[in-house]
Amino acid sequence: MMGSMGRLLDGQAVAAAIRADVLPGVAEFTSGAGRPPGLGIVLVGDNPASEIYVRNKVRSGTESGVWVDLQRLPATASIDDLLAVVNRLNISERHDGILVQAPLPEAMGRHAAQRVFDTIDPDKDVDGFHPANVGRLVQGRAHLAPCTPSGVIELLDRSDIPIARRYAVIIGRSDIVGKPMAMLLLQRDATVTICHSRTADLPEVASRADILVAAIGRAGFVTRDFVKPGAAVIDVGINRVSDRATAVSLFGPSSPRLADFDRRGSVVAGDVHPEVAGIAGALTPVPGGVGPLTIAMLLKNTLAAASARRGGR
Amino acid sequence: MMGSMGRLLDGQAVAAAIRADVLPGVAEFTSGAGRPPGLGIVLVGDNPASEIYVRNKVRSGTESGVWVDLQRLPATASIDDLLAVVNRLNISERHDGILVQAPLPEAMGRHAAQRVFDTIDPDKDVDGFHPANVGRLVQGRAHLAPCTPSGVIELLDRSDIPIARRYAVIIGRSDIVGKPMAMLLLQRDATVTICHSRTADLPEVASRADILVAAIGRAGFVTRDFVKPGAAVIDVGINRVSDRATAVSLFGPSSPRLADFDRRGSVVAGDVHPEVAGIAGALTPVPGGVGPLTIAMLLKNTLAAASARRGGR
Repeated sequence: MMGSMGRLLDGQAVAAAIRADVLPGVAEFTSGAGRPPGLGIVLVGDNPASEIYVRNKVRSGTESGVWVDLQRLPATASIDDLLAVVNRLNISERHDGILVQAPLPEAMGRHAAQRVFDTIDPDKDVDGFHPANVGRLVQGRAHLAPCTPSGVIELLDRSDIPIARRYAVIIGRSDIVGKPMAMLLLQRDATVTICHSRTADLPEVASRADILVAAIGRAGFVTRDFVKPGAAVIDVGINRVSDRATAVSLFGPSSPRLADFDRRGSVVAGDVHPEVAGIAGALTPVPGGVGPLTIAMLLKNTLAAASARRGGR
Repeated sequence: MMGSMGRLLDGQAVAAAIRADVLPGVAEFTSGAGRPPGLGIVLVGDNPASEIYVRNKVRSGTESGVWVDLQRLPATASIDDLLAVVNRLNISERHDGILVQAPLPEAMGRHAAQRVFDTIDPDKDVDGFHPANVGRLVQGRAHLAPCTPSGVIELLDRSDIPIARRYAVIIGRSDIVGKPMAMLLLQRDATVTICHSRTADLPEVASRADILVAAIGRAGFVTRDFVKPGAAVIDVGINRVSDRATAVSLFGPSSPRLADFDRRGSVVAGDVHPEVAGIAGALTPVPGGVGPLTIAMLLKNTLAAASARRGGR
């Protein structure tokens, strides 16, 4: 039995609004610099999900007037091959931003991603993962903040969901989402709790949140008992479900999403169980929630990096 | 009416144990390098509290076999004068660690401290305040972590207070204590909440903590109603109280601390009200709690910086 539906937060619409805000800046930069802002994207191997993410980033950038340079490396590339590409983009005049698509092939070793982040010029680090940029974020003076958590802030702001003095709970402590999300919410005067796989009594802690951010990578993990009635629930998870029983338990036997599953053999689900729509005050869908925001913020960061490089900051 | 007393956590004893652990490393470094680890301390002006802190750091370092080079600048020094000293210590072979004592004179401007932290060679940054070191701390790979929060972790460990799966609440979100404390507790698998001046219903949030860290700089702010019976309470505050009525309300009319006040005209108090001793399971005193730990961790960081520089990490 479902309660009344909470408001669905339309990530597509907010992402379009962010892109619209970025457009004049791109045009201004392009006419001033005599070239468009340049974004180098490095894709290693042929992970199907990465192919889709990268395709969306290339399309969105190109549509916004950014020059996107996709550099591909085979799955057999070494970490040194990858770092050589990064170093080439670091010294390039035309590349203002650099993004290396995760995940990297396991053969590159456990610390490959970290070595890449350490190598990218912090001024071109549009993902905001270089330790110097992470430190500046903590100190409240980031010029390039990680795209997903800063996209969530934009979504809350543009959806008129107040942050200051509210109680925010983040499930997940990744460097990419959980920790920077905590820092950004804290800077906006939320009281912030970070939970994780070893948190005791997680549903109880989560159910105190006015703003609940799920970023754990487990389909449907956040159920009704995690959610205070009326809370804003932000679903950062993008999980591919290829088990039909799981898909049924998430979407129910008569959902159009299950029809999708039967056509394609899999379906994408967030970290938040669909039943939460019946109790949340506001909820981001998956897909169409946080995902588009991440890409919009990438464009915003690319323009910021380009302008800062040109302005000599 | 006071309940039974919680255990007092003896910061002096734990600091002595940390120093004892550092001593063999100092001796080994000194015989290998032909010189002791070197710590440059820069003191600007003549703030009386800073004089005491610096004197303790110099004494503790010297007693542990570290070469401590105290560089003084007058209160009228400019930020450029200060940065010139820092740059000189950056390139010095004999200085492995550099510490600029806070606070800086207000005339240096609002961003003076940040400019200093940005200038110190990250490999010599024994305070752990350079953005690159802050970023590495967040990423769980700090080689130089801020002294006060890492001292608190040592205190908890050496007092057999478990951290993993416990609920920790930090009151205060400074770059020096609150935020790095959150990151260190998170890395040890605590569930962590950061509160601050704009937190709604602070006593209620604080009173859920198994581990409560007070770092706000307000004498006696944390009263009984902030504390769950049996919680470990860590008092990071060092506040000078020069109002007699406040001293009476903190320590009671017949306390030896009040006699101290009447002799000296002021007394030092923590952020935690003394009445909390009647409800906490464990509590750090002020003075003699976290303060000595901070200095012990400074020596540990100095040795770590010296060893890393020599070893080429």
